[in-house]
This record gives sequence, structure tokens and C-alpha cells, in this order.
Amino acid sequence: MSKYSEKIAILTGDPNGIGAEVTVKALNLLNLPPKDIILISNDKILNSVGKLYNNYEIINVDYNSSIRFGEITTEAGDFSYNCIKKACEIRPKFIVTAPVSKEALHLAGHCFNGQTEILEKFLARDRQKAEMLFVSRDFRVLLLTRHVALKDIKITQDIIIEKVERLRYYFQNKLYIKKPSFALCALNPHAGENGIIGSEEIEIILPTVEYLRKRGINITNPLPADSLFVNASKSYVNGEKMPYDCYIACYHDQGLIPIKTIASEKTVNMTIGLDIIRTSPSHGTAFDIAGKGIASADSMIEAIKTCFV
Amino acid sequence: MSKYSEKIAILTGDPNGIGAEVTVKALNLLNLPPKDIILISNDKILNSVGKLYNNYEIINVDYNSSIRFGEITTEAGDFSYNCIKKACEIRPKFIVTAPVSKEALHLAGHCFNGQTEILEKFLARDRQKAEMLFVSRDFRVLLLTRHVALKDIKITQDIIIEKVERLRYYFQNKLYIKKPSFALCALNPHAGENGIIGSEEIEIILPTVEYLRKRGINITNPLPADSLFVNASKSYVNGEKMPYDCYIACYHDQGLIPIKTIASEKTVNMTIGLDIIRTSPSHGTAFDIAGKGIASADSMIEAIKTCFV
Repeated sequence: MSKYSEKIAILTGDPNGIGAEVTVKALNLLNLPPKDIILISNDKILNSVGKLYNNYEIINVDYNSSIRFGEITTEAGDFSYNCIKKACEIRPKFIVTAPVSKEALHLAGHCFNGQTEILEKFLARDRQKAEMLFVSRDFRVLLLTRHVALKDIKITQDIIIEKVERLRYYFQNKLYIKKPSFALCALNPHAGENGIIGSEEIEIILPTVEYLRKRGINITNPLPADSLFVNASKSYVNGEKMPYDCYIACYHDQGLIPIKTIASEKTVNMTIGLDIIRTSPSHGTAFDIAGKGIASADSMIEAIKTCFV
Repeated sequence: MSKYSEKIAILTGDPNGIGAEVTVKALNLLNLPPKDIILISNDKILNSVGKLYNNYEIINVDYNSSIRFGEITTEAGDFSYNCIKKACEIRPKFIVTAPVSKEALHLAGHCFNGQTEILEKFLARDRQKAEMLFVSRDFRVLLLTRHVALKDIKITQDIIIEKVERLRYYFQNKLYIKKPSFALCALNPHAGENGIIGSEEIEIILPTVEYLRKRGINITNPLPADSLFVNASKSYVNGEKMPYDCYIACYHDQGLIPIKTIASEKTVNMTIGLDIIRTSPSHGTAFDIAGKGIASADSMIEAIKTCFV
């Protein structure tokens, strides 16, 4: 039990992007009690974008460079990396991460594909693995595959079983939903139409679904993804309970298109499966508008609010 | 010039499905002038589902079987096929097709993947080819590939050029939009992120886009599909003009998920590129509710209304 074990650690991301700006805006708008929050950043970076109304505790991570909005720098990549490292050391309950630049990380010699992978390095123990969940209110989408080229998408029984089991664990132990309902997207159009348009549904996905059901998991057959989100959209817009507790997409665009189209900047990126749950806004560093004071804090607000659900 | 060359021919599709029911409902609700419409169906089938208020001309196609709602029969497959054949013979301005059963067509020996392919057989001349466009008001989505398994999706320069040229022809000659704007979805997540997640954007799509621009076509670079439809959704919901005249998706679910999620049953399936433009509702035969009188005519209404835009 660390002194931070009930807190939300907020990281401001790449100093040359909009991270600090949206963090300060979000905290001022949300007006959260200082006892709940710990900022992992740097005074210089925070002061460069405005003033925090509340007196939040700040853990200062070294940053011996000037701020160069819109630029990709080694110092910024190092700072981004060190903030995540620090967050993992202090073991808070949640981590909220403003966006970092993949290129700045690489420039600084930290060859990770993103913050999720850095978290995995520092936090993954006991076969824990990070899963990407996208969330807006009770609309949730899990991806079976992450950032892979379309031609390299491969759905196996192992992938489905591992990820769905992890998803169930998260629902039962973090959201206290005992028997969550999962809707599974088919890989192929029209769910393969009995094997006419692709055989993965018959050969891989359906047998796996049957196996998962025997293990007590409430999951649909693979359903045609083009019509699956019609009712989700209606429920979301009307503020009603979603038809399923979580949608499971086979690949990036299949899951991200519907949730971003429906919830737009209210979409939050969550990393589950590790000891600490992480949320982040769904936008990037937005170098093109960094330092101009015009960035919207909507997605950052949602990312912080999601920790309180 | 046939006597039908200014008319809309409406086909009721598979007699055992909901086609005739939604046709009669739609025509009664729309109350269109009889001079504009020609029904290609059969009195027995039409009478089995209700009464048409207006006195529309009907071309009777043979149907010597009883109606067996929810069943897949040879007679129904033959009838579906013969109605399309008849429609192509009389050369109307538009064809609106209620859904047919692919299995009934196959059972009757007509081995086509759907009505689009039958129309292609009868109408395609002079290198004309059918393109699938999905439409709701001024929200339009073209598919570069149709019903193919995910692993078989292959985007080539030829496919992009042919389809985009046909799309431009349609906009210029049928919708009288001289310089339509096209938004192109990337094949890979994050548009390939400079080749890190797939190389098709750099190797195939970008050079093709540059070629098309030299030919005077207003088309974007390949854009990340997950965020591309956020503004489309906002414009559609607010009743504003869409950001682009047409969105071009690389594959089925990439294009169908956003338009169905946003426009649901208002989505109309259009076949362009042939002498006659065809529209159809976005639902299927709905055998499970056929003959019960509970089918919604919303999508059929949109399919007919689209001919008047």
C-alpha cells in the first residue's frame, strides 16, 4: 500500500504538445478535491500553459529544456518516458496520461509503440497483459488486435480466449458486474455468410465462443459488424443503458469507427489488465495547435471522469 | 426511349419475404402519382399483403406457386430473377428492388451473389460496371471492395482509379455536381503511420491519389478511418451539408459501419455505373417476420425517395 494507492496520477505527456494545456483546463473545470489527485509533471511545463486554481500535489520530473511547442525533441521524449516510470513507481489507483509523441520517444531511445507498451514493461507481472478498451459512459469496445496492418490481422482461438477472460476479470473485479454481456463482431462482412465470405467465423470464432460459454461467459455469436452498432448508437444518443456491457472488435477500425463516430471526443482510451488502470484522451499531441491555448479539454475531462465511475 | 424511360420501376423481391409488404406500405405512405411508378410483381403477391390505395400500373410476372412466408423456394428464386430481367427489358429511369434471397436464387439455378450482379449481367455494356454506393440524404459512401473476406481485401491502383472515375462520372452526369469532393479512407489504422502499420498507403494509395488529382479529381489523401466520420456524424445529426460529397471506403465494414451507425434504417443501397440507377433498402428478406405485417417500411421509403433527389 503506497501513500498514493487511492489517488489518480495525472501525467501531462509531451511538453511540446497540448498535454499540459488540456490537463490544466480539465482540472480547473472539474474542480476536483486535491486529496484525490497527484500530478506527475514539472512546474515549468505547468506554468507555461496557465494556472491551476486548486493546490494539487505535484511530483516534479526533471526537464532541463525550454518548451518548444510543436517540435519533436529528445528532451521531450525522455520526459514523457520518465513521467510514466515515476507513475509506475508510486503505484496510484489510476493513471491518466495526456498524449506523448511516439517519434519523440524513439528519438530519445525509448523504442515503444506508445504509453501502453511502457506501462506493460513496468507493471506487467504474473502474466498480466495490457488490453486496450475504448469507453464512453457505458459504451465500451475491446480490440482483439491493436495497431497492425489490415493484411496482418489474424484472429486465433488463443487471442479470443485470453482477451475475453481478461475482460471478464476486469468487469467482475473492477466494475463489479458479475455476468457482463459481450457482443462479438465477426471478422468478415455479413459474419462470413455461412462460409461464403471467409471461413474464420466457422472454423475459429464459433467454436471459441462455444468454449467460452461453457466457462460461463455471456457472449454472442460473431455478428455482422455493420449492423451491430445501430442499436448501440440509439441507446447512447437516448441516454439509455447499452444493449451490451462491452463490444469486442476484431481489429482497430472495426471498433474505433463506431465508438468515435458515436461518442466523438467523449471517447476515452483505457488500458486494463494491469495492476493500475490507465485512461487517456483519444486525441494525440496535436502539435499543430500546441501552445495556442485553443485545445479542447473535453476528452481529457472524460479521461479523468472515467476514473470516478 | 421506352414508354417507361421516365418511370421508377419497383420490384417486390422474394415473395416469401417482407418485400411486397414494405412496398405496399411505402407506396401508400408516400402517395406518389401513378404516372411516375410501374410495379413489377404479381397481383397475387401484392394482394396477399394489403391494398394499394393508388392505381399503379402493374406488370405481372408469372408466379404459379402459393406464398410460403419464411421459406426458401425455387419458385420464389425464379420469380425474383424474372422480375429483374423484366425490369431491365423495359428500361425505366430507376429500379427500386425489395430484397431477394440469395439461397432461393441459387436453388432456382441463378447463381448470382445478389441483384447487383444480375443487373450487371443484363445492363452492363460498353465497359459499364456496377458500383455499390450507400446513401442517406447527402451522406454517401462508396466501397472499393464488396463482399470479400477480410484476408482477401486487396487495393490496387486500377481498382481505385476505375471506381473513382466512375464515381466522378456519376456525380457530374446524374447529380450535376461538377467538382465533387471525395474523402478517402486509409486501408490501415492511423493511415499506416508513415509505413509503420502497413505500406499500402505509401506504395499504392498516395501515388494513385496524386494521379487522380492531376486528372482534376478533388480527393483527399488516405485518412485514418476511425476519426474521419466524426464530423460526418455531427453534420448529419445537425442536418448540415456533409463535409465531403462522398466517402470512399476500402472495404465493406469500414464503409458500412459508419453510415449504418449514423443513419440506421435510412441507409439506402444504390447501384450506380449502369444505364439504370437502382436503389434498394438496406435490410434483407427478414424471413423471420415475413407475413406478420410488422415490417418497417422506413428503408423502402428512403429507397424510393432517393430516386426523386
